[in-house]
Amino acid sequence: MAAKMPPIRHLASASFRQWIDGLDAFLFDCDGVLWRGSAAIEGAKEAIQLLRSLGKKVVFVTNNSTKSRDTYVDKLAGQGISATVGDIVTSASACAAYLRKHDVQGKVYVVGEAGLAAEVSAQGFENFGLEHNGKTEVPTPFAVDPAVGAVVIGLDRAISYYKLSYAAVSILTNPGCKFFATNTDPTFPVDGAVLPGGGTCVAALATAVGRAPDAVIGKPSQALLQTILSTHNLDPARTCMVGDRLNTDIEFGRLGGLRTLLVLTGVTAPSEIEYIENEAQRPDFFVESIDVLNQLAKKE
Amino acid sequence: MAAKMPPIRHLASASFRQWIDGLDAFLFDCDGVLWRGSAAIEGAKEAIQLLRSLGKKVVFVTNNSTKSRDTYVDKLAGQGISATVGDIVTSASACAAYLRKHDVQGKVYVVGEAGLAAEVSAQGFENFGLEHNGKTEVPTPFAVDPAVGAVVIGLDRAISYYKLSYAAVSILTNPGCKFFATNTDPTFPVDGAVLPGGGTCVAALATAVGRAPDAVIGKPSQALLQTILSTHNLDPARTCMVGDRLNTDIEFGRLGGLRTLLVLTGVTAPSEIEYIENEAQRPDFFVESIDVLNQLAKKE
Repeated sequence: MAAKMPPIRHLASASFRQWIDGLDAFLFDCDGVLWRGSAAIEGAKEAIQLLRSLGKKVVFVTNNSTKSRDTYVDKLAGQGISATVGDIVTSASACAAYLRKHDVQGKVYVVGEAGLAAEVSAQGFENFGLEHNGKTEVPTPFAVDPAVGAVVIGLDRAISYYKLSYAAVSILTNPGCKFFATNTDPTFPVDGAVLPGGGTCVAALATAVGRAPDAVIGKPSQALLQTILSTHNLDPARTCMVGDRLNTDIEFGRLGGLRTLLVLTGVTAPSEIEYIENEAQRPDFFVESIDVLNQLAKKE
Repeated sequence: MAAKMPPIRHLASASFRQWIDGLDAFLFDCDGVLWRGSAAIEGAKEAIQLLRSLGKKVVFVTNNSTKSRDTYVDKLAGQGISATVGDIVTSASACAAYLRKHDVQGKVYVVGEAGLAAEVSAQGFENFGLEHNGKTEVPTPFAVDPAVGAVVIGLDRAISYYKLSYAAVSILTNPGCKFFATNTDPTFPVDGAVLPGGGTCVAALATAVGRAPDAVIGKPSQALLQTILSTHNLDPARTCMVGDRLNTDIEFGRLGGLRTLLVLTGVTAPSEIEYIENEAQRPDFFVESIDVLNQLAKKE
């Protein structure tokens, strides 16, 4: 048994001013924090406006690999939140940058959605995979393009046995073929449901090839956090990670020395915060939803 | 580092007579032992004939959940091997029997192929899932039939995000809904390739629901082995498990006190047998292929 842990603190009027004055920047998860699927979470737009009006830098950091950053700009705008591509980091954009930084050679086989393929293309990599959507015939022997030098995998709602096979055979038979995952989130919060996340696709492929990915790019990767901190010139001690998931968002912030704020509008249930025994996943504060920031600011 | 292990013994002329005289029965894995995909492995038919001519009982025990036992009878017959349904145990038939034995209530959601659905139906369970093949639209909220009392999952070459979601939401939201896996083989040997096995589907679902299956029915389950031994009245010490996979076939036999014979025509490469450090996965003997039994018998 772990030692009894102190309860997670609720961010309230008594602590709000000191908390917010201690911060210069906020890294925001999106799904489960600002929206769920297509439904905006109440107060999200106003909370971002509040923080910006107080001079805080806001960066959006999402493990969602299905959309390109351009699409995120549009999605944020659709909810009344202005942002540039430079304000946004997705596990897809970070994965594509990782491929470039690590000088991956050859073609890239993408098990993912259009946003991931777009980011990989934007880094100059010839890639394919989307055109395999809907293929059901699995030929034997199963031949793959010998020029595939890396497989990247994230949430793919068109996942199929054909695509899993293509990825697995590439990794197992192309010498030196790399295996990268955008993220390993087990679930994905949408309107009124928690559905399988990118981690389910990764687990399937990792099982087929008998090994873990060479790298998992998204949160809680500290390489990703360091890139964000240096790109935006942020002081970790004065930066707060805001998220709904303990093993990605909160761990991402805690391991990097950031402050952390958990919201309960995503995948973490209120009952769960009594039992967070993993120190690296214990947030500094929790709020029921991001709208609490607006309420606390109004009370001052 | 583990202590240096003695090499696995090659079954050869010097040991053949004593080995075969010490055995009354053989449990045969099929894929990778008797055939690979649609291609028969040379000498398989003759080896079964040889063992039967020597008065040995032969039972076919496969983790392949995609075919019903009736289909296996036909497949064996197509390779010149006669068998009755009673001679065959598949992870699908064993899984369906397990549902009945453990008094599962309600409907069964099947993430698998026709053989699994047929065996579940044969045990009298209302079940569905095959009719979801090809569905690509994932509605939100995602409603599932509240009468689903169990999800069974095995290799499903029509796996889709819709089916994974249906299974995950059933397990997560239907009170008491059980989660059973036919098998967790990571790979599946077919003509000229090693493709993803049932374990990849199971890993995806287990990741989505955040827990392991309530039971994995197929090899190396010792509950399955005990059922086979008692059904056929076999003495484990005089029974040999013949298979191509260390972590299913060989472990299945070793844990149950059986003799074990590894063949190298399936998923285990010759180079791998130098490094079997897990005592439970070390076979008594290996042969290059089942045809070696015929060659050894002829030399006598």
